This record gives sequence, C-alpha cells and structure tokens, in this order.
Amino acid sequence: MEPRIIDITELALRDAHQSLIATRLGIDDMTGACADLDEAGYWSIECWGGATYDACIRYLNEDPWERLRTFKKLMPKTPLQMLLRGQNLLGYRHYQDEVVERFCQKSAENGIGVFRIFDALNDLRNIETSVRAVKNAGGHAQGTISYTVSPIHTTALFVDQARRLQDMGVDSICVKDMAALIKPQAAYELVRGIKEACGPALRVHLHVHSTTGVTLVSLMKAVEAGVDCVDTAVSSMSLGPGHNPTESFIEMLEGTGFATRVDMERVQRVKRHFMNVLERYSEFQSKVTGVETELFKSQIPGGMLSNMENQLRQQGAGDRMQEVLDEIPLVRRDTGYVPLVTPSSQIVGTQAVLNVLMGRYAVLTGEFADLMLGYYGKGPGEKNPEVVEMAHRHAGKQPITCRPADLLQPEWQKLRSEALALEGCNGSDEDVLTYAMFPQVAPKFFATRHEGPRNLGRDPLTGVSETKPAEGHQGAIT
Amino acid sequence: MEPRIIDITELALRDAHQSLIATRLGIDDMTGACADLDEAGYWSIECWGGATYDACIRYLNEDPWERLRTFKKLMPKTPLQMLLRGQNLLGYRHYQDEVVERFCQKSAENGIGVFRIFDALNDLRNIETSVRAVKNAGGHAQGTISYTVSPIHTTALFVDQARRLQDMGVDSICVKDMAALIKPQAAYELVRGIKEACGPALRVHLHVHSTTGVTLVSLMKAVEAGVDCVDTAVSSMSLGPGHNPTESFIEMLEGTGFATRVDMERVQRVKRHFMNVLERYSEFQSKVTGVETELFKSQIPGGMLSNMENQLRQQGAGDRMQEVLDEIPLVRRDTGYVPLVTPSSQIVGTQAVLNVLMGRYAVLTGEFADLMLGYYGKGPGEKNPEVVEMAHRHAGKQPITCRPADLLQPEWQKLRSEALALEGCNGSDEDVLTYAMFPQVAPKFFATRHEGPRNLGRDPLTGVSETKPAEGHQGAIT
Ligand SMILES: [Co+2]
Ligand SMILES: [Co+2]
Repeated sequence: MEPRIIDITELALRDAHQSLIATRLGIDDMTGACADLDEAGYWSIECWGGATYDACIRYLNEDPWERLRTFKKLMPKTPLQMLLRGQNLLGYRHYQDEVVERFCQKSAENGIGVFRIFDALNDLRNIETSVRAVKNAGGHAQGTISYTVSPIHTTALFVDQARRLQDMGVDSICVKDMAALIKPQAAYELVRGIKEACGPALRVHLHVHSTTGVTLVSLMKAVEAGVDCVDTAVSSMSLGPGHNPTESFIEMLEGTGFATRVDMERVQRVKRHFMNVLERYSEFQSKVTGVETELFKSQIPGGMLSNMENQLRQQGAGDRMQEVLDEIPLVRRDTGYVPLVTPSSQIVGTQAVLNVLMGRYAVLTGEFADLMLGYYGKGPGEKNPEVVEMAHRHAGKQPITCRPADLLQPEWQKLRSEALALEGCNGSDEDVLTYAMFPQVAPKFFATRHEGPRNLGRDPLTGVSETKPAEGHQGAIT
Repeated sequence: MEPRIIDITELALRDAHQSLIATRLGIDDMTGACADLDEAGYWSIECWGGATYDACIRYLNEDPWERLRTFKKLMPKTPLQMLLRGQNLLGYRHYQDEVVERFCQKSAENGIGVFRIFDALNDLRNIETSVRAVKNAGGHAQGTISYTVSPIHTTALFVDQARRLQDMGVDSICVKDMAALIKPQAAYELVRGIKEACGPALRVHLHVHSTTGVTLVSLMKAVEAGVDCVDTAVSSMSLGPGHNPTESFIEMLEGTGFATRVDMERVQRVKRHFMNVLERYSEFQSKVTGVETELFKSQIPGGMLSNMENQLRQQGAGDRMQEVLDEIPLVRRDTGYVPLVTPSSQIVGTQAVLNVLMGRYAVLTGEFADLMLGYYGKGPGEKNPEVVEMAHRHAGKQPITCRPADLLQPEWQKLRSEALALEGCNGSDEDVLTYAMFPQVAPKFFATRHEGPRNLGRDPLTGVSETKPAEGHQGAIT
C-alpha cells in the first residue's frame, strides 16, 4: 500500500530563529540555504511575519519587504508562508480594515503565498478582514486556533472554532500550540475532531514547539488522526523553546504507513548551513535548552518566562519569580482564560508582575484594562466582573462588545501623509505599512536604511561583530 | 477504566552521566538526590556498572563497592540496577566462570537487585554464566538484546533471541538500543513480537538513547505494544547522546490509557538537584547536543564517533573522518554485522581508522583479529572468510567456535594472590575483582584510595576544581 503523504512546513527562516536567537538572524545568513530549502519538497517555507518584521527594522537595519523579495527570488518553487496577527497585522494594536487589506495585498504581491492568520483571543472577528483580504489577493488563507489549556478550552470548543473558520472560507486550519502544551492524546482527539466536523477535504496543519519534550509524540498522534501538514525546523535550528527537528520527523515515519515528500539530502545540507551560522549568534541564544515540563503546570510559554524575569530584575525583585508564577493563573482566570500568546502573554505577564510588586490590581496597565474591557476582542470565557469594573474606573472607558476595529476611523491617508513626511521614506505603500505598524521605530529605520543590513552574527573565535545588540524589547510568543 | 501501569527505570545515576559527562559524576554530587529517587516510585534505579566502575577507580579515586553500599543505604526501597557485560563483567576481556560467579555474588551482597546482562555480539553463551550466578545470588536477571540495524537483524531474529533468553530462565527481557536507532514502528513490532512469542508474563523493558530525536515516539509505540518498563533520565540529565526525559515520558501518557506510578514532585526535586550539579561538569560535557539523525545512515553510536575523531586527530588525519565513516559499514559487514556497542564499537571503529590510514587490512589490531576468529563469541551473521584468514595469519591463532570462556583456565586464586600483593589492597573479594577487571589501574587506585574520593566538578563561576581530568580513555558505548 502506498503510504499516506504528510506535508511539512519548514520553520528555519522564521519561527525557529525567533524562538532560539531572539529573531536576530540576518538575511545574508539565510540566503545560502534557500536553494536547498526550495528544492527539498516542503509544502511551504515559513519565512516572514511574526516578530521578524519588527526585528528587521529595530535591530538589523533591514527592509522586511526587501527580505521578502529576496526570498521569493531565491525560492520561486515553494510557497512562502507568513504568520499574521489578524487585525493587529505585525504590530501591537488593531488597524482599520483598509490598512489590513493593503497589508495583505502588498504581502501577496511581494511573494507570500500562505497566510497563517491568528488572534490571541481566538476572536474570529479579528481575523475575518485578513482572511477576506488574503483571498482577494489570491493567497492561501489559513485560519488558526491558538491552542491553550484551561477549564473552558475543551476539544469541542476548538472544533467549533474550526467549523466557524471553515464557514468563514479559510483554505486550511492550523492548530497553533506556541507553548508546547498539546499532549499526544489531546492532539489526536483535536485533529480527529476537526476532521470529523469539517470533512476530510479541509486541510489541518499542526504547529507545535518542543519546549516540554512531548510534542514529537503529539505530531505522531496527529498524523494517525489525519493531520495533513506539520511544522518542523531543520535539526540544527531546533529543540529547546524551538521546534521538533525536521529530520527526526521524517525518519520516525519509516514503516508506519505515512511518509513525507521531503528530500533528506537537501535537509541535511540546510542543517549543515545553519549549524555553522548559529554559532555566530550564541549571545542571543535562549538559556532554555533541553526540556521544561513544569510548563504543563504554569502553562506559561518559555519566552514569556524570560520577559517576566527581566521585568522583575529591573525592579530589583529577581527573587519573587515564584510569586509571579503563582499569580499568573489567577490573572488569567480573571481574563476569562485568554490563551497566552502575543500580545496577551505580555499583557497578562506584566500585570502579574505588577500585582506581586504593588498589590493585586493596585495598578493596572493600560493594555490590561483594554483587555478586560474588550478592546482586544472577546475571548471564550467569562471575565471577572469586579476586575472589569476596576478596569473601567482605571481607564475611564466603557466596556465594548463590538469588533474592536469597528471603532476605528479610516486611517490610511493620515498614516500615509505622516510616513511620507519622514526622512528616507521612499513613498511606497510598503513604507507606509512599516510606519503604521512601528511608528516609533520606522523614522530611525527610514533614515538609516541606505546604510544597508546590519549582521549581528559574531565570529565565535575572533568575536568580531558589526554592532552590539539592542536591549529591552519584549520577545513575541508565536 | 484503570490505566495500564508502565514502569520506569531512572538512569540519572549511571547511563545518563556516562552519556553526558563521560561518567565523571562523583558520589557526593549524587547523594543529595537519593532520598527523592528512592521515594519517587521507580521500578528500579540504574546506578552501577557500565563504565562507572572503571571511571571510579581511574578518575575519581572512589571505591565502586563503597559507592554501591552508599546507594543501598540511601535508597533502601527501590531495587538498584546495574549494567553487566556478561562474561566480560565490567572489564574488556572474558573471565573464567568462577570470577563471573564471585562478581555477581558480591554485587548482589552489596546491594544490586537487578542485573541487566548483555553481550555485544548477542552470543547468549557469553551471558549464561552471569544469568545463572545472579539467580543463585537471589537477584533479578535481565537478559538483554543489543539492538542494531543491519541486513540480517530482523524482528524475527531478535524475537528468537528473546525466546532463547526465556529458555535460559531470565526474569525479564531488555531491548537495548544504545545508538538511538529504533524507530517507532520497529519498536512496536519488536515489543509486540516478543510479547507474542514469550507470553504476557515475561516482562519486556526498553532502553533507548535520544541521540536521533525519534525515540520518545518509539517509547510511545512500545507502550502501545505492551512494554512493561522503559528507561528514562530526569530532564536535567537528559537528551543529546543521553536519554529521553522522565518528566516528558510521564506527561505524554496523559489520557492515553497508560500511566506511571512515578511521583512528579519527587522527580522535579531530582531535576533541580542535577541542574545545579551538571553545571559543575561542563568541561566533560558531550559536544553532541540536539539531535543527530545522520546516525541512521552510519549506524554509529555518538560516543564511538568522538573516539574515532580523537584517534584521527592524534594521527594528524582529522580531515579523513568521512573516509572512516564510509569504511565502517564495510568493516562491520566483514564481521558479520556485529552490533556496535562496547567492546565491538571500539574494535570496529579502530580497525576502520587503521584501514583508512594504512590501507584496508594492511594492519589488524589484536582485538579485531580476535573478533574475526571467534574469541569474543559468535555473532548471527557470516564473516568474510578472506578477512578471517588474514586474522588467522596475523594473529597466529586458530578460529574457534566454542564458548570463549571455555578456553580459560581457573584464574581466581592467581588473581587473588596478585591482588593481595598490591599496596593498599584490603584483601576482600571486592578488591580482587577490581584488580581482575582493571589490572593496570587497580594498583594505583589501591595505593591512593585512602585519600578518598576526588570530585571533578568545578564551580562554574570561580572555576575551582580539585583536580584536572585524566585523558585518553576510550568512552564506552552503553
Ligand atoms: Co511558534
Ligand atoms: Co545506554
């Protein structure tokens, strides 16, 4: 019997280095692998979006659109994939629909074929504009379920979300487990449930991290349950807070009745490329290596943990981490159990730190108040009404129940005028989008762009690097 | 329905540090974890044998028997387990039966409950004396299959070996995959095959390393196939060339209908203990971290690779590794496809290096000649008769077909007299066994034993250590 084919999305160029070396990989350390990546037979290559756009302009003096065009030129065969935070695009607020539409259009024009679209709260109203825009632009719109574990997040709830995504017209479903919490049996039941509810024709993809050590087994169970595509990263850019190794996934299928189309020789060339590259970024390397199963209890993604540790240390309270770990589940319950992913992970984490340092809800961040008042959208759970009331008093705003972006006025023309007034802005829609998403960083980037990309790699022997890393930017959880 | 219980053997005190930090862990870095290990609910704790005996007297100035008694005192509840190389005991030659019998007797007296007994060639004549001696001493005799991949090593061959072990009277079967080569489907079929052939009452244990990244999935499949016990190592002493993390194994079973009896709180205390300890041994740490799937092609255990690299470098031929990698499968075929485990891994690896440097079989090591002539026992495959003939001419010895130990004269009294003549020998059978197994190292150890154990840990901040590591000892593959 012919084995059933399981597709693979390779993460080396986006989520892998975002998870392992704080998104610092420069374009000239990636181009050498592109020919092999393109020929290897992946279903798609994730290479753009997430935190890479931010990192490009903030740390690397690199135009993210130019990066995308380079990828498209070097990888013409395999669909290029991006991670998109729905109505937030790649920024940290909601954008009015026209901005979202233009972003999707421009991303497709510049080379993105597959758009993985998620919302931190799983509020589908926050992704419907992107889905429509992607389809209008001729792209593949992948509707995403942000996986989490809580008393209200049942298989049935997620399966219902998949059905609603299908009704919205997505081309495929992704289950996105950014904290490596999905255990084998849960993965089996969820993939099976979605396949049964949505029919065999709707593709199901599974994105897992490897932090807890169990998720390669979860991928095996997802394969048995009918998953169409899994996300992995070449072994030299894998494991720890990253992802399961592509080679291990391919090898483990031998004799099981499942197989991939991916060419191992090509993958091993990519592996050797990044083995040499990664050494040059050791100063950015995550301290988390090996596995961390205590996450199953705290349900806190690895990147969030290190952000909170930094915040505590900056307040001279580095010894109070355990109190914060105990506080997070309480804050999360008050929010109605939001999944912990960008931006909710940062919002909940920062509020938990404040609660420990200042007293519970003695001080609210503006973002936390907005989350409680519905300005990020609606999650599936009930919020604590007392904390909603505190947020109302603190922020002087009313709770809302509408789609947050419905409150926004048209803003494209204003953003465009502001961007065009900046030194070095080239007048393109792409530059306007850069300014729209990163109004603080874009002016400096436009002014220095002509100097060309900055590579933060450092020779491990001579220590030579071109620049010191910037500090203080919160890591995204994706 | 009650979940089926899967037992766990914890490897932290033996194979884990043997695989990760070259067996250098000193007793005073282990005692602090013993209470939690003993209370955690493991089926057994592997803590002795393999390369630890050698490392104790060679590097740590530590009496291995004293170490064992310390373990027994600190861990009275959980059976202590050792790895025994059959007729080789823990040394590198065959011993006459009386020496084997006394070793097993003394090991049981000093605290070992479970004896995992293997032979590198899977020649069961090399383990039958140990099995009988262990049973006479009241121990649990675990008969072991050294797993390997080759054209002749079929599931049926291994299942037949299990049947013959059962006929020999072993208390359980262990499938021992030292090179992390067993893929999920193979693990399923092998465990299933053994259970069907030997009946449900004969316990089947599975020992796997994590080097290739796929073996936690293999453990899952083994569980589904009916395995009784798996080997894992606490997460802070896991992965890379070591083993799958105990915590990940426990967590991954949730909801599957299988469960362990192991107490996660205890395991996490053990984890934190070794997290702090391991930092102090970073200079011994294996350079292999992450996963290495190219092993599936070469089938060479990780430790063997680094041995051969050292050998090549010492000959100024560090750039010829690829030739050696290509040579190994040919040498291995000539031997009739011996599994690559101590001592066959060293013998085959060294001969492959010589073949590359001097011309194929221009020079034979004495050990390789002995292997070809049957002096290590009989493997399952046909040897290349031309190479056997070369070995005959080179060594001036006839090929044999009998059990190698049958050629040995009684030697206990002679060993005893020689040992007792050494300065510092305390006259015990234990000391005679130390001398018997390590006649070169024992004299120095006896003379310096009174100085007490040497801890090779080094404070990661101050760099303070008591002694520099010794050099040049080949790592064992276990
Ligand atoms: Co991710
Ligand atoms: Co082992």
